[in-house]
Amino acid sequence: MSSSFGTLFRISTWGESHGPTVGVVIDGCPPRLPITKEEIQAELDRRRPGQSRITTQRREADEVEILSGVLDGLTQGTPIALLVRNSDQRGGDYDEMRTKYRPSHADYTYQAKFGIRAWEGGGRASARETIGRVAAGAIARKWLATAAGVEIVAYVKRVATLEAAVDPTTVTRDAVEANIVRCPDAAVADQMIALIDNVRKDGDSLGGIVEAVARGVPTGLGEPVFDKLEADLGKALLSLPACKGFESGSGFAGTLLRGSQHNDLFYDAGGAIRTRSNNSGGIQGGISNGEAIVVRAAFKPTATILKEQATVDVDGKDTTLKPRGRHDPCVLPRAVPMVEAMMALVLADHYLRQRGQCGTGA
Amino acid sequence: MSSSFGTLFRISTWGESHGPTVGVVIDGCPPRLPITKEEIQAELDRRRPGQSRITTQRREADEVEILSGVLDGLTQGTPIALLVRNSDQRGGDYDEMRTKYRPSHADYTYQAKFGIRAWEGGGRASARETIGRVAAGAIARKWLATAAGVEIVAYVKRVATLEAAVDPTTVTRDAVEANIVRCPDAAVADQMIALIDNVRKDGDSLGGIVEAVARGVPTGLGEPVFDKLEADLGKALLSLPACKGFESGSGFAGTLLRGSQHNDLFYDAGGAIRTRSNNSGGIQGGISNGEAIVVRAAFKPTATILKEQATVDVDGKDTTLKPRGRHDPCVLPRAVPMVEAMMALVLADHYLRQRGQCGTGA
Amino acid sequence: MSSSFGTLFRISTWGESHGPTVGVVIDGCPPRLPITKEEIQAELDRRRPGQSRITTQRREADEVEILSGVLDGLTQGTPIALLVRNSDQRGGDYDEMRTKYRPSHADYTYQAKFGIRAWEGGGRASARETIGRVAAGAIARKWLATAAGVEIVAYVKRVATLEAAVDPTTVTRDAVEANIVRCPDAAVADQMIALIDNVRKDGDSLGGIVEAVARGVPTGLGEPVFDKLEADLGKALLSLPACKGFESGSGFAGTLLRGSQHNDLFYDAGGAIRTRSNNSGGIQGGISNGEAIVVRAAFKPTATILKEQATVDVDGKDTTLKPRGRHDPCVLPRAVPMVEAMMALVLADHYLRQRGQCGTGA
Amino acid sequence: MSSSFGTLFRISTWGESHGPTVGVVIDGCPPRLPITKEEIQAELDRRRPGQSRITTQRREADEVEILSGVLDGLTQGTPIALLVRNSDQRGGDYDEMRTKYRPSHADYTYQAKFGIRAWEGGGRASARETIGRVAAGAIARKWLATAAGVEIVAYVKRVATLEAAVDPTTVTRDAVEANIVRCPDAAVADQMIALIDNVRKDGDSLGGIVEAVARGVPTGLGEPVFDKLEADLGKALLSLPACKGFESGSGFAGTLLRGSQHNDLFYDAGGAIRTRSNNSGGIQGGISNGEAIVVRAAFKPTATILKEQATVDVDGKDTTLKPRGRHDPCVLPRAVPMVEAMMALVLADHYLRQRGQCGTGA
Repeated sequence: MSSSFGTLFRISTWGESHGPTVGVVIDGCPPRLPITKEEIQAELDRRRPGQSRITTQRREADEVEILSGVLDGLTQGTPIALLVRNSDQRGGDYDEMRTKYRPSHADYTYQAKFGIRAWEGGGRASARETIGRVAAGAIARKWLATAAGVEIVAYVKRVATLEAAVDPTTVTRDAVEANIVRCPDAAVADQMIALIDNVRKDGDSLGGIVEAVARGVPTGLGEPVFDKLEADLGKALLSLPACKGFESGSGFAGTLLRGSQHNDLFYDAGGAIRTRSNNSGGIQGGISNGEAIVVRAAFKPTATILKEQATVDVDGKDTTLKPRGRHDPCVLPRAVPMVEAMMALVLADHYLRQRGQCGTGA
Repeated sequence: MSSSFGTLFRISTWGESHGPTVGVVIDGCPPRLPITKEEIQAELDRRRPGQSRITTQRREADEVEILSGVLDGLTQGTPIALLVRNSDQRGGDYDEMRTKYRPSHADYTYQAKFGIRAWEGGGRASARETIGRVAAGAIARKWLATAAGVEIVAYVKRVATLEAAVDPTTVTRDAVEANIVRCPDAAVADQMIALIDNVRKDGDSLGGIVEAVARGVPTGLGEPVFDKLEADLGKALLSLPACKGFESGSGFAGTLLRGSQHNDLFYDAGGAIRTRSNNSGGIQGGISNGEAIVVRAAFKPTATILKEQATVDVDGKDTTLKPRGRHDPCVLPRAVPMVEAMMALVLADHYLRQRGQCGTGA
Repeated sequence: MSSSFGTLFRISTWGESHGPTVGVVIDGCPPRLPITKEEIQAELDRRRPGQSRITTQRREADEVEILSGVLDGLTQGTPIALLVRNSDQRGGDYDEMRTKYRPSHADYTYQAKFGIRAWEGGGRASARETIGRVAAGAIARKWLATAAGVEIVAYVKRVATLEAAVDPTTVTRDAVEANIVRCPDAAVADQMIALIDNVRKDGDSLGGIVEAVARGVPTGLGEPVFDKLEADLGKALLSLPACKGFESGSGFAGTLLRGSQHNDLFYDAGGAIRTRSNNSGGIQGGISNGEAIVVRAAFKPTATILKEQATVDVDGKDTTLKPRGRHDPCVLPRAVPMVEAMMALVLADHYLRQRGQCGTGA
Repeated sequence: MSSSFGTLFRISTWGESHGPTVGVVIDGCPPRLPITKEEIQAELDRRRPGQSRITTQRREADEVEILSGVLDGLTQGTPIALLVRNSDQRGGDYDEMRTKYRPSHADYTYQAKFGIRAWEGGGRASARETIGRVAAGAIARKWLATAAGVEIVAYVKRVATLEAAVDPTTVTRDAVEANIVRCPDAAVADQMIALIDNVRKDGDSLGGIVEAVARGVPTGLGEPVFDKLEADLGKALLSLPACKGFESGSGFAGTLLRGSQHNDLFYDAGGAIRTRSNNSGGIQGGISNGEAIVVRAAFKPTATILKEQATVDVDGKDTTLKPRGRHDPCVLPRAVPMVEAMMALVLADHYLRQRGQCGTGA
C-alpha cells in the first residue's frame, strides 16, 4: 500500500534509483482517451536530470515504454503500465554510503524500518521514484483537460528569499517554461538562477516554494470529512521528496486576518455564483467551488551537499561524510512537473469519485 | 469512503450538526486494551462547546455511549462504536441559512455536490463531526501509550500575530490545560484570551496555528513514497474543519535556509543514533527517526461572524446575511484535542502497518 | 478492515450478540434517495428471530433507529448510521460457553486470534451481526430499483435433499413470502417445513442452498480481473455465517458439460443482444451481460445442536457440552434476506464504480 | 482497483494477451526474503502454454524479468515489479473476433462496459493476465514457507465425471507433477488425459474441479465478518478465468448432513487442540483453526471450441463463428498453479494483517 495512490484513478509506482528500472501502473484510467508516448515523454523531459546547468548532471534519457493498456493510441480502460530503464548508474560515487548514513536523507530510517536498504543513490527514496508519478500525471492531466476542460499550471514561486509575483488566474505554461528555473516572473527568475549557480559552486543547496493552480475545475469535487480536496492535495504534495509544508488558498498567511477580512463573499456573476476574493483557494468544506484551486508546497534545501558533514556509520559510530555524487543544488525547477502530476492525479481521482457517487454526466 | 480514515486502525464517522446523533466506529483496534467510558469522555470534554467564555455557547453534554467492542473494560479486537446524541439544536438561529449561502462555509459546495444539503448548522460540515474523531483518538492514544510509550501533546502556538514560545521536547499536557486558550506560554496565553474576548464582542473572528508533538515514537513508522508519515499527518490535519495549512519540522521557514544549515547531523548518543538538530521534525524519507515528531496546522479565522455580509441566495441572486447563531470567535482552543486525536490515529495506524509488514512472529 | 465491505457504496458493521447494540454505517449512498425507517424495518422483520416456529425463539424486536444521513425522508449523500438495540439476552443459557469451545463455532478461533472473546452467544460471530447488513441492504436495494430498475429475489432452493423447482427469471417475492420456509415451490416448501420441524424436535439441524437472482441489471457492471462481479458476489455470500460454498450460473454442475453444450449463444433479440441459454449466470469475463444474474450459496447445518457433544475446555482438556440455548434448526429461511442484502450491496457498489470509471449517466 | 488484490500483501497486474507485455507489481512483501528469478520462473513454467499435448500450443517462453525490489537476491520491502514479454502473437487467428462476439467469452461485456476492446485474443480477459498472479504467488508462497512453514498443494480433482481419490492431508507436489494433467491419482490421471485428448480432437472442451490444501497454517488468520478467510479465498479463486464455483471444507455436499454429523469435535491432541473431522476445511468463523485448509474451485469447460457456433456481430446481427485459434481443451492442468498462487496471496496477506492487528512488538 505504501506505493499506491488514489481510489478510482489509482497508481502504483516501483523502482529504485540504481535498480534496473522505475515505472508505474495506472489502474482506473477511463477508456477511449487518446494518448501517445510523446505526450508522456514531454512531461518526463521536464523532470529529467541534466536538463540545465542548475539541475543534477546525472545523464538519463528517461525514455518511456508503454507496456500495456493503450491500443492504437487509445486507452482501453485497463491498467496502463509505463517503464523507464535506468542507465547512468555511477555507483562508485556512492561507495561511502554503504557504511555511512547521509544526514537528513532516508538512509537511516530505511535501515531502521526494513533492516536492509538499497544504499546506492537512496534506492527507493530517490527522486527517480517520481518518474512514475510524472508519467501517470501526464495521462491524468490529458484526461482532465479532455473530459472537463481543467488546466493545471505550477511554477517556482520562491527560492530562498527570492519571491516571484505571479497571478495564478492568468499564468501560462509557456511563461513557466520560458526559463530554466521555471519561474514566470522573468526578472526574479534571473536572480534565482544566479543564486542557484552561486550556491551550486559553493557545494551547498537551496529550498523554496512551488505554487500550483488548477483552473476550470468543476464544482463539487472533493469529499466531506477525511477526503477533502485540500487534504488529498496536501497528502499528494507532502508525499513528494523534500516537501515539508503545504497550504491552500490563504494558507498560513490567512491566519493573520480577521474573519471579516478573510471570508470570500459570494456574488451573482451573470447567472454563475462566484466569490469576490479567493482566500479559500477554490475549496470550501473540502469541495471545489468553481474558483481557481491554488496551493503551495514548501521544499527544503536539498539534503545532498558537497561539504563535509558529521554523521554516524552503520555501526552507530561518529564519523564524517563528504558526498562526491552529482546533486541538485535546488530541487524546485524539477519539482514543478512533479507537483502538476500529483495535482492532476488527485483531481482525476475525485472527478471519477464524484461521477460515481453523484453521477454528474459522462 | 469520504468518512473513513486509516488502513488497519480505521475509523468511520457519521452524523450531522442538527441530526439526532454523531458517532464513530473504530475497526482494527487491537484486543485486550483497557479502556473506559471516562477516558473517552475526558477528551470529548476538552472538545465540547461552552467549556469557556472564548468558545461557542452552544450547550451540549456530548456524553458518549459505548455501543460495542468493549467488554468488561477491555477491547475485543472487534469494531468499537461510540455514540453521542445531539441535544441543544437551536434550529431557529439558522432559518436564514435555508435560503442563503454563508460566505466561506460549505453551504454552497455541498449543494453543488449533492444537490441537497442539511442546511441547519452546516449539517455534516459542522465541527460536531469531529466528536467521533476525538472519541476514537482517545482510544488510539491510549493504545499508543500502552503499547509503545508514545506521548502526544498539542497546543495553541499562535493566535493572529500573538506567538507563544514553547519547547516541544518538554511541554506537558498540564501546562496546556492550565488556561482556557490551551497555550502553555502563560504570558502570551493571557494576551490571546484578551484578544479573543475583544474580537468576540466585535462579532468577528481569529485564526492561528496549533503545534503538536509526539514523543517516544519508535523508529521505522511511516511508509516510503505515498504514505509517508508526514503526508498522512498532513492529510489528517488538513481534513479538520478550517485547516488551510500544514508543515512538519522546519516547514515553510526551513525553505529560507541552506542545506548546510538545515541538515540534521547524526551523532552517537551513547549507543543510540540521534540528531543534533531536528529540522526534519522526526521524519526522514517519510519514516520516523526516533526524534520528536513536530507538526503545525494553520486554522483560518472562523467563517461564522456576527456581521452583515454580502452573499447570494439559493437562486444565485445577490443578498445579504447576518448570522445570529452562536459561534466560536477562534477555533484554536477546541482544535487542540482534534489535532491530538488525528495525530494519534495516524500513528496508531502506522504502528500496526509496520508491525504487519516488518514485524516478527504471528 | 475486517468489518467493512464495498468500495464506493461501503458499509461498516458493529456489535456483538450480547453487547448493547448492533448497527451499521453506510458511506457512499447517493443523495436524494427517498427512504423510510419502515422500508428498512420490513427487511429486518424478515431476518428477525422468533418470526415462525422453524426459527430460533430468541425474542428481539430488532427495531431500527436512523442515527444520521437521512433528512425529511431523503438521503443526503452523507453517512447513514443505523442502530438496533439488543434486548433478549438470556446470558444464562451460555454459561457453559465461558469455559468450553462449542464444536464448529468460532469460539476457539476467536480466542486463538484475539486472546480474548465475547463468549456469550458467539459475540461478534453471532448472526446478529447481519442485522447491519440487512438494514444497509434495504437501502442499496431501494437505490438499485430506483436508479436502474434492478429487482433482486432470493429463496430457499434446497433443504438437505429436498430441492425446489423454481424459475429464476419469473419468481416473485410474493411467492417467496407465501410460506415460512421462504421456498416458492409450495409443495416442496411443505415438505421442508415438516422436515425442519422434525429435526428441531430431535435437537439436530439442517443445511441447504439459497438461490438468488437479480433481474434488470445493466450491462457492464463488474470489473475485469480481481473484482469480477461473481468474485465479489462470492466473497459477499461466503462472508455470511455458515456459508461454505458459492456458485454462479451453471456452477459446479456446469463442469460436467462440454464447451459445445455449455456456451451461451448470442442472438439478435430485436435489436438487443441476448443469449439463448444462461449458463454464464448473467456474468461473462466478470462483467454483467444483461441476462439474469443467478447465484447459489451453500449453508452448512447449524452448528448449535441440543445434543451432547465431545469438545475441549479453554485449557484444552477433553470434556463434553450440551447447549441449552435457543437455536435455529435450519438457518436458510432467515438467510434469504441476508443473501438479498449482500447481493444488493455488491451491485450498488459496482453500479457506482461503473458510473465513475465509464460514466454511464446519472 | 479492478486489477489490484490484497490489503497488506498487495498485487497489481497489467497487460493484454496481444499487447507488448504482461506483468505485476507486488507492494508489501516483507524485506529480507531470499528470492531468485529461477524460483519465480519455475512457477511460470507450470502455467506456460505449450507445456504438454493437452494444453494450448501457443508458444511463449514466458521468461520473467525482475524490474525492481530485489537486490543481491533479497527483497527490500519495496515494490517488486515482474515483467514478461509476449512473443507468439498469431493475431491472424483472431481476425474474425474483430467483428464477432465469441460465445461465453468476455468480448461482448468488455465492449458494453468500456465502449472499446482489445479484441485480439481476449485482451485483458485472456488467461495470460494470470502470469502476473502466478509470478507474485511464487514470492508469497516462498514467504509463507519461510516465515510460517506453510505448504500449499493444488491438484486436479475432477475432469468432467472423472474424479480422483486424493488425501489432502498427505498429497505432495511431486505426486501432482508426476503427470501432465496434474492429478495425483495416477490411474484416474490416465483416464483424464485420454478424455482430454479425445475431446481436443473433436474441437470441444471440458471442465472440472481443482482442489487445494494449505497445511501448517497458523491459527488465527482471517478476519471476522467480511474478510473471512474463506470469503477472501473464494473471491481469489472466483476471480480466475473460467471459475464459476467455490467451496471450502464440506462445501455443497455438507449441506446434505445433519449438524450432529457435520460438527467437527474438538479433542486434546497431547496439548494441542485439534478436531476429529475437518468439515470446516480448517476455517471456523472465518478464522483458521490449525487444521488443513481445503478448498475447491469449479472451472467451466473452455469457451473457445473449434466448432461453428451461432453468435452476433458487433452490430448485433445474427451470424456464425468458427474459431481457428489454438485453445486449451481443458484449463485445469494449467489452473493448478494459478489456484496455488491465489491461495498463497490470500494467506500471505492475512498473515501480515494478523501480525499487524494482534502481533507483538514493533
